[in-house]
Amino acid sequence: MTQVKAYAAQKADQPLAPFQLERREPGLKDVEIEILYCGVCHSDIHVARNEWGGTMYPIVPGHEIVGKVTRIGAEVTNHKIGDTVGVGCFVDSCGHCNNCEEDLEQYCENGHSQTYNSLLQDKKTITYGGYSTHIVVTEKFVLKVSDKLPLEAVAPLLCAGITTYSPLRHWNVQKGDKIAVVGLGGLGHMAVKIAAAMGAEVTMLSRSAGKAKDAERLGAHHFELTTDPANLKKMANSFSHIIDTVSGQHNYMEYLSLLKTDGVMVLLGVPPMPETIHAGALIGGRKSLVGSLVGGIKETQEMLDFCAEHNIVSDVEVINIDQINEAYERTIAGDVHYRFVIDMASLSK
Amino acid sequence: MTQVKAYAAQKADQPLAPFQLERREPGLKDVEIEILYCGVCHSDIHVARNEWGGTMYPIVPGHEIVGKVTRIGAEVTNHKIGDTVGVGCFVDSCGHCNNCEEDLEQYCENGHSQTYNSLLQDKKTITYGGYSTHIVVTEKFVLKVSDKLPLEAVAPLLCAGITTYSPLRHWNVQKGDKIAVVGLGGLGHMAVKIAAAMGAEVTMLSRSAGKAKDAERLGAHHFELTTDPANLKKMANSFSHIIDTVSGQHNYMEYLSLLKTDGVMVLLGVPPMPETIHAGALIGGRKSLVGSLVGGIKETQEMLDFCAEHNIVSDVEVINIDQINEAYERTIAGDVHYRFVIDMASLSK
Repeated sequence: MTQVKAYAAQKADQPLAPFQLERREPGLKDVEIEILYCGVCHSDIHVARNEWGGTMYPIVPGHEIVGKVTRIGAEVTNHKIGDTVGVGCFVDSCGHCNNCEEDLEQYCENGHSQTYNSLLQDKKTITYGGYSTHIVVTEKFVLKVSDKLPLEAVAPLLCAGITTYSPLRHWNVQKGDKIAVVGLGGLGHMAVKIAAAMGAEVTMLSRSAGKAKDAERLGAHHFELTTDPANLKKMANSFSHIIDTVSGQHNYMEYLSLLKTDGVMVLLGVPPMPETIHAGALIGGRKSLVGSLVGGIKETQEMLDFCAEHNIVSDVEVINIDQINEAYERTIAGDVHYRFVIDMASLSK
Repeated sequence: MTQVKAYAAQKADQPLAPFQLERREPGLKDVEIEILYCGVCHSDIHVARNEWGGTMYPIVPGHEIVGKVTRIGAEVTNHKIGDTVGVGCFVDSCGHCNNCEEDLEQYCENGHSQTYNSLLQDKKTITYGGYSTHIVVTEKFVLKVSDKLPLEAVAPLLCAGITTYSPLRHWNVQKGDKIAVVGLGGLGHMAVKIAAAMGAEVTMLSRSAGKAKDAERLGAHHFELTTDPANLKKMANSFSHIIDTVSGQHNYMEYLSLLKTDGVMVLLGVPPMPETIHAGALIGGRKSLVGSLVGGIKETQEMLDFCAEHNIVSDVEVINIDQINEAYERTIAGDVHYRFVIDMASLSK
């Protein structure tokens, strides 16, 4: 075992603070990574504070990890020491269920091992995330990261990037498709960038006029306020896809009316309470309301390669690890454009 | 104009009664049909009683029509006098919008002309349905019906048949797929028959044990009570498709949990009030909640041909037209296995 520095929450109501963590020695197929940057996902906050239940304390969050390979096991073939690599939302899965065999580890039927607050496939060892100096991960779950792009801005691709890329690909967004993105935050700003790079005509739907400039800068072709009923009426039956990134309560019915025939509304956010749906809103136009959860390892690599090719990164604000608690508060307040990323060198000092 | 006998409701709270109707003389592309049988769809009742609003009285319902061609216009090429034909839920559409050009007249962007309580494409002439001795329809909306099957039992295919066939085809049900059908009524019994003929392994989901025998007779491979939580647990993550034909209030969430990854739940019924959906139920497993409305003309012909090939008809109870009001009450009470069909000879007498 190797002792590594980390930041952890010891209880739901306590701030994150320095913590000493044991990482396993790299096994035959393991890759040890020195973490350079780790993004701050809203999920980190939910889990650190036990807002979804089931948090195992101490909790070390972080699943948007970019770093350098420092050691490898004897049987590792895909990565070598010094490579720039990434780790996303999970670090292992059963490998043999129907979904794993189809590269859909995110839906592993036997339960994948999430990067933190989860169990490894031995169903005993608790996982600890990227708010630490090093992590050891089985090689299949380690992604190759291009050195071409600024690494601090690549980190959020490992969660926010793949979460938006995967449904855009799966529901087959094509060049020229008119799509809408709801909510301009960590997920929304990536959806705009990636969809625009795929050639879609992107409309940003928002409740605050103040976001119009940013939406345009990020690549949205149009910006429409959803607070104005005339705008909604004008956009009726016009989008092939709506990527809904909002995790606060909101009215799905309002957006379904904007889909054209065979249109697809993709839910990525999970509002705390259920929303209401009238069947007629789906039946009149053969519409689909769907959900999507991050993406598999193969597709995550495809996304990283796509982003490198198209020069897509996240808009980030880099912080030192000792600013993490303040960053949590600002994330909750929506005061971040659009992702905090921890410079992990600040933890080694 | 030709005077024809019909049955109409004059007001929402009045029973259907004999009515004299004017049908247009067949135009160049028109087909005049002597109606032999007309199915009784629950929609007929909703519209006759103005339960959905917008009923134009007098109303002559009926959109599950089978008959013989009696006259044709000079430019009619697809049908000849004496042919057995059918007419379903609509009798015209704009013909040039995106959806019409893709054979999706049911979603015509300029508004299709429904078979009753609707306007023809002149946007003036009110349509009257199949509870009458004759109807005149532009040839494109007249379907060819095989004489191989009992015509009274073919009539409901024009609505109940296509409404279930279309989503099974569109969402690509394949041989060996494990699918579930919710609700054993007019739609449900057709869904079971058609899905089984497509080679799917069909499970009937029901709240009443009394339906088990019928489900088996119709071709369902399994029958499961949804009132038993142990059954629901056993079936979790097991179906690729759920065809939900229920129009009363029911809990979508219960059924979504039964879908496996990438599963699709198709809503065909419209409960009066909205239902609630938690985004997590779709996100965990990339599931889809979708709707579907009857089917286009090309697909309706494909369905009729499929049913003729596979000897599929509706289970019907044939009535005389003067039993229609009683049949409405029994339909509302669920006391029909599984469709009333009016023998229109009873109206000519």
